[in-house]
Amino acid sequence: MKKRPLILVTNDDGITAPGIRALISVMKTIGDVVVVAPDSPQSGMGHAITIDSTLYVEQVKVDDGSQVEYSCSGTPADCVKLAIREKLDRKPDLCVSGINHGSNSSINVIYSGTMSAAIEAGIEGIPAIGFSLLDYKWSANFEASKSYVKTITENVLKHGLPNGVVLNVNLPNLPKEDIKGIKVCRQARANWVEEFDKRKTPSGKDYYWLSGRFVNLDGGEDTDEWALENGYVSVVPVQFDLTAHHYIQNLNSWNLNDTETNSA
Amino acid sequence: MKKRPLILVTNDDGITAPGIRALISVMKTIGDVVVVAPDSPQSGMGHAITIDSTLYVEQVKVDDGSQVEYSCSGTPADCVKLAIREKLDRKPDLCVSGINHGSNSSINVIYSGTMSAAIEAGIEGIPAIGFSLLDYKWSANFEASKSYVKTITENVLKHGLPNGVVLNVNLPNLPKEDIKGIKVCRQARANWVEEFDKRKTPSGKDYYWLSGRFVNLDGGEDTDEWALENGYVSVVPVQFDLTAHHYIQNLNSWNLNDTETNSA
Repeated sequence: MKKRPLILVTNDDGITAPGIRALISVMKTIGDVVVVAPDSPQSGMGHAITIDSTLYVEQVKVDDGSQVEYSCSGTPADCVKLAIREKLDRKPDLCVSGINHGSNSSINVIYSGTMSAAIEAGIEGIPAIGFSLLDYKWSANFEASKSYVKTITENVLKHGLPNGVVLNVNLPNLPKEDIKGIKVCRQARANWVEEFDKRKTPSGKDYYWLSGRFVNLDGGEDTDEWALENGYVSVVPVQFDLTAHHYIQNLNSWNLNDTETNSA
Repeated sequence: MKKRPLILVTNDDGITAPGIRALISVMKTIGDVVVVAPDSPQSGMGHAITIDSTLYVEQVKVDDGSQVEYSCSGTPADCVKLAIREKLDRKPDLCVSGINHGSNSSINVIYSGTMSAAIEAGIEGIPAIGFSLLDYKWSANFEASKSYVKTITENVLKHGLPNGVVLNVNLPNLPKEDIKGIKVCRQARANWVEEFDKRKTPSGKDYYWLSGRFVNLDGGEDTDEWALENGYVSVVPVQFDLTAHHYIQNLNSWNLNDTETNSA
């Protein structure tokens, strides 16, 4: 690579989270780093964007180094949009999001602010990767993740990614010597079985806390869940063309226009 | 169908929106209706869920009829989860979301609270449809939409939908006589070119409003954008396995485990 790549870094745990600090430290060894990240945690925000509210962006200095950093009042997707349109001189060569405190494997990709930032960059035609460590704690240890983050990032810069594809990388919460390597995977068919914890306010009104159990329904050994359970870093290529192309033919056989319509 | 189907209705514009009222009126001609919908507008919420905050659900009566209705403080995805776990005696036969005030065609599916509710139901194995009218106004006229909503819903109840597929239906904002019929489509490759409107608060601090122009980059005549521009109702089958299966082989050729790792 002749000149240093321009790398946009964001996340959904907020700009002061240890996970984004670890990610910045790796990216500085690869390129020039600009950070635009939420000023507060945004987990579970999915692909939310701020339509009916104002957005603030402020240059900040969180820790030492050459990176330029902005703190933003919006969601991860807002951060990427604002970075591209307002804060960067040129289109970045790469966008990385994370390292998330907690898994974004299997169906979690749908709820993930970390991945929504990567997808937003992908929509803009920027190669993008979301990184997540399987430890939701603020005190999570990101040291073992760093060399894998670097390897995967360097490969994306070298090979590029096709239009419409971004990477979802999850890292097992293991000491480095116990990590077996990197596996390219598909998203496991798994879901959450919600359990609502019903309580009463001091004044007697019912309210709920959302909680749940994660259930992997997918026995395949080519899934991200399998890889992570077996000590591998999982890499899933993710697309944002959500069309179920395989089902179009079937839907056409319904002959929707021939159906007798009883007016409602 | 021997017995009347149980239909869960939700949306992202809020339980009092004219769009959900129109949807409820159609669904009552087909089955038994339970409504669990947000107590306030949730547009642009993507697939957000409420993890770190309390949820309130209250039985309400918005207008006359046999439907049972609950207003919920959460997101559309929360509404579906709460309905299934706490408010319905049995798994519903169908979940419908909408009718959204405004388009959820092409890339808008990613940001859509309406579609996130349908996807959430799909994850639970419930056939699900999101409906959207291409008129964002509160005063939008849903009359012309009703017979199409009914036809598509009856077909889904008749044929079912395979695991992992939900429908994204968009309705053109046209008088009934100008609607040409229903087209099964793929998601157009289109995106938003954001323009941030930068302003100053009375005290002199910069802030932004997100705005933008919709740009369709896709010349195909098999897309939802083409169908809508040409007077058709668009039906896109949507999947929530986001794996870019076609790219797995390519990623494997990167030989990520052979890459020399420079420790970060």
